[in-house]
Order: sequence, then C-alpha cells, then structure tokens
Amino acid sequence: MIERIAILGTGLLGTSVGLALRAAGYRGSIAGWNRTPEQAEIALQMGAIDSVAKHFLEVGRKCDVVLLAVPIHVTIDFMEQMAGLLGPHQLVTDVGSTKREIAAAATRLYNREGRAAFLPGHPMAGKERGGASLADANLFRGATWLFTTPREMKGTGFSPYHEEQSESAALAPEAISPRATELIREWRDWVAKFGAKIVDLDPARHDELVAWVSHLPQFISTALSALLEEQVGGAPELKEIGGRALREMTRLGASPFSMWRDIAHTNTAQIDAALQAFEQRLAHLRENLRTPALRDEFDQANRFRS
Amino acid sequence: MIERIAILGTGLLGTSVGLALRAAGYRGSIAGWNRTPEQAEIALQMGAIDSVAKHFLEVGRKCDVVLLAVPIHVTIDFMEQMAGLLGPHQLVTDVGSTKREIAAAATRLYNREGRAAFLPGHPMAGKERGGASLADANLFRGATWLFTTPREMKGTGFSPYHEEQSESAALAPEAISPRATELIREWRDWVAKFGAKIVDLDPARHDELVAWVSHLPQFISTALSALLEEQVGGAPELKEIGGRALREMTRLGASPFSMWRDIAHTNTAQIDAALQAFEQRLAHLRENLRTPALRDEFDQANRFRS
Repeated sequence: MIERIAILGTGLLGTSVGLALRAAGYRGSIAGWNRTPEQAEIALQMGAIDSVAKHFLEVGRKCDVVLLAVPIHVTIDFMEQMAGLLGPHQLVTDVGSTKREIAAAATRLYNREGRAAFLPGHPMAGKERGGASLADANLFRGATWLFTTPREMKGTGFSPYHEEQSESAALAPEAISPRATELIREWRDWVAKFGAKIVDLDPARHDELVAWVSHLPQFISTALSALLEEQVGGAPELKEIGGRALREMTRLGASPFSMWRDIAHTNTAQIDAALQAFEQRLAHLRENLRTPALRDEFDQANRFRS
Repeated sequence: MIERIAILGTGLLGTSVGLALRAAGYRGSIAGWNRTPEQAEIALQMGAIDSVAKHFLEVGRKCDVVLLAVPIHVTIDFMEQMAGLLGPHQLVTDVGSTKREIAAAATRLYNREGRAAFLPGHPMAGKERGGASLADANLFRGATWLFTTPREMKGTGFSPYHEEQSESAALAPEAISPRATELIREWRDWVAKFGAKIVDLDPARHDELVAWVSHLPQFISTALSALLEEQVGGAPELKEIGGRALREMTRLGASPFSMWRDIAHTNTAQIDAALQAFEQRLAHLRENLRTPALRDEFDQANRFRS
C-alpha cells in the first residue's frame, strides 16, 4: 500500500533509510527534501531518493508515508506545520532521539479523526559524524529500532501496553483509520527488512532508558575528550600513547553539538539524573583506589560485560 | 649479542613478546616461566618459548636478557630477589604499567657496579582479557612502547633527558657496563622490529601521562559498566539498545581487577587527580545541559578528535 514516501531531511539517517528501502526491494517513489539542497543532491546521486523536493509541506501532502529525519526541535516544528494539511490516509513517522515531547505532539496534533497517523520511531544507529555521504543501506542491520507507539493506538494491534498507566490517555482506536493502520503495519515490515530489531516502549520509559544506555555514554565521552584536549591536546604523540582503548573511549567526542543540543534540551531531567548517579559512582571508586571495595566495582563491571 | 632470553610471566604480554621475537627473526633461545605452569605450556605450544623453566631465579641467572611480564608488585619482588644473583653482563627489563616504583627499585638495586642493568619498559598494548592463549605476534604493531630509562643511564646514549631535574640523580655512566649498553641497544632494536614506536619518558612524567590517557579511561569504563549493570543488567535486550557506542564505552569494563589493583596502588595520587578533574568537568557539563556552555564542551571535544 505504501507507494510514495517523502524523506524530510536527507542527512545520515534519512539517506540511509532511502538506501535501505531500495536494498530491501521497495519499488515506489522516494522524494527527498533537505534544508541545504546539496545534501539532497548527494542523496539523489546515491540512489537513496529519486527526486528532490523544493518544499517539505508540498511533498508531504502528496505521500503515503512522511519520514521526518531532522533534529528534534525541527521535527516538532514540522509536525505543527503539517498537521492541518495532511489527512487520515497518511502516516507520519520520525527518527528523533528523544520521544516524550514528540509523542506528546503526536497525541495533540495527530492520531485523531480527520488527521494523519503519527508513529514515533527511533533507530538506535548512527555514526559520530553525519551527512548524506556517510549513509549506508546496512546502517540499521542488527540495530534496535524503537517505536513509542502512542497510547491512543491501543486496539490497533501494535501497541504493546500490557497495563494501563492513565485511563484518560486511552483514546478510541477509531482515531487511527484502517488505511493508516495498514500503513503502520507496512512501515514496521520495511523496518524489519532493514535488518533492525523492533522494540516497543512507552515514551517516558524510552527517554529514561536511552538516558542510561545512550546519552550517558555520549556525555561521558564528550567530557573526557574535552578534558584530554586540555591536558594533552597540543601533543599528538601523547594522544597516540593511549592506543585503541583511548580511541574508543573518545570516539563519541567527535559527535556534533547540533544534534546533542536538542537531546539535552528534551531529556534534561533524565540525563541529569544519570550523570549525577555516575559522578557518585566514580567518586566512590576514587575513594576506594586502595581498599578492597575496588574489587567489587571491577566484579560488577565484569558482570555487565559477561 | 642477545642469545638467551628468559620471559618470566607467560601471560598475554609475555607470550606475545615471545611470538613477536620469533616473527621478527630472533634465533636465540627463549625460556619461559609462569606461576601457573599451564600458561607456560600454552606459550610453549604456541612457539613463543622453547623451554619451560621450573624456577625464575635459576633461569634468570643463565640469560642475557630477562623480561619481567608479571604484575607490578611481583615485578618489584622479583627485582629484589634477583638483584644479588645477576651480574653486569645481564639486562633486566619489564612491561609494568606504572614506572615510578619500578624505576626507583632499578636505581636502588640495579644500574651500579657489579649489578645487572635494568631498563624499565611499558608497551601500550593489551586486551581486556589476559592469558597466553590470546597472545599475538602483532600485538605491538603500531603501538607505543614507552621506556623510562633511569637517570643513571645518562651518558649511555639512550636517555632522552634534555634538562636536569635533580643533580643527585645523575650517576656516573660507567654504572652500566659496555656489554649491558649493547644489550639495551639490541633490545630496543627488537622492540622496534615488533612494529612498536619507542618513546622515552621520565618515570614521574610517565605515570602522570598514563593516568590521563590510560588509567582514567579504564576507571571511567569500569564505573560506567558497574552502574549500568545495576540499572539494566537484568535485561539483556536493554543492553543491546545501546549498540556500538555502548559496547565501546564499556569494553574495558571486562578488564580484570587482578591487573588494575597494582596500578591503583602504585599510581594512586595521579589517578585520584585525574578522576577528580574529570568529575568536575562532567558536573560542569551537567550543570550546563541547557546553556550555551554545552556548545563549548562539544567544540573542545571535537578538537581532541580532529
């Protein structure tokens, strides 16, 4: 049923989705739009899209599925601009790294009578540098693709909620049209064909979990890289001494602020809590450099990796 | 001139040195000793050594070069036991991860008339798990091999000290015999043939530097792994969500306490200072999750990786 797809944002993720769709056998059209047209031209040359759109609203109106692959604040901005122009025969989905604010916007603006369906998504894949030219049809192979199916999709068969957290949040399933329900099913099938493992999570649980397993490691690597730049940045031969271990621990230090600003802004409390817990853990280890408690920390760390 | 080598400790590093010597064309004998004889048998079967010694003192007395590849405290213990039994025609060297205490023992016990020469060394190579069976002839290729040539070797041509930090530490060059001087030259040549890049450092500067580029990343990874074991350890599917970034940031979490205990004990002040500086840096980042200062941290981290 999906015959026309619009990819709004042809950076690393958007362009990789286009390539993955083609590699998985998708034969419909893929229109691409990007704020800087050069990135869309690269995606076109790579075969990730087959046309470059001039304006995201125009192309969005004409497609069965609209994929938002732009920073989180732009995603919410586009959701607001598009909501009144799209219809119940359409599905909008995204790849944003935090999901509470996007899921709230989806409930507010989509997934109701006369409106398009919105399925918040988050592929746990990427590279420390962005851009269409680094895109890869296999970027999602073996990765987890999280969906935070909104509560109002209860009854459509996709929502994984086993227990009810808020009665008022459970809207009528007829808020999602049968056609949109089928588009959701098909989109999830394509994601599975990319080689990704689909996991459904509540939006709040999603943001809490990624604060631990994704945002915490990123901010640690950024702080470590920044500190070492101060300590040994002027002496490349000293960086080399650290070898593979140091390279790995600072690889994420190359990640761009432009992407992480929105994550820090939309998941502040959870990231703050994870960082504070880590600072306490590290201080505990430091205070026990010469006591037997150091063994307990190594033992527990070893268990995580076993 | 090097015809007989003893490798005391045939774990990952000792066995890899044996394999690297053979791969580089060394044709003399290599005797191996290990506290648990099974590891020495594995090294023998792998061709890293050609005989298994029953006692480290006996085999040490018969060799031109004795390589200590045991934990730091055992290294110092063996240095004390061997000092009076070896002679000025012999060279002892090691692979210990901290160098102040070992260099101090070298100055105290070796590098003087009638005694063997001692050249403290530290290859910046390893794996998160140890043992002879993981040994690799190419372990040192592209890695840095640090030497903290003691101050008393000034005048032998190996010591890189450009300025004098302590007049009293500069002993007479004749403390090192011409034969031992030649053994040092040859050993450094073999290390270069392993594919390693040799860097000479003052022992105190060595310990300060590795606290930043090696020990700090290790303890961060241990604390992160231990914390995440507490948070998501019971749910393997949640670990998977973190993907490559999380795997890299926690790989060192598998490192054994048995090795890091001695490092923590012999470099406590420097590690404590590096950890405190990092905790402050991370707290600064946390307090600025929603301010423009976050950009400065990302920019500085990006510079480290550029």
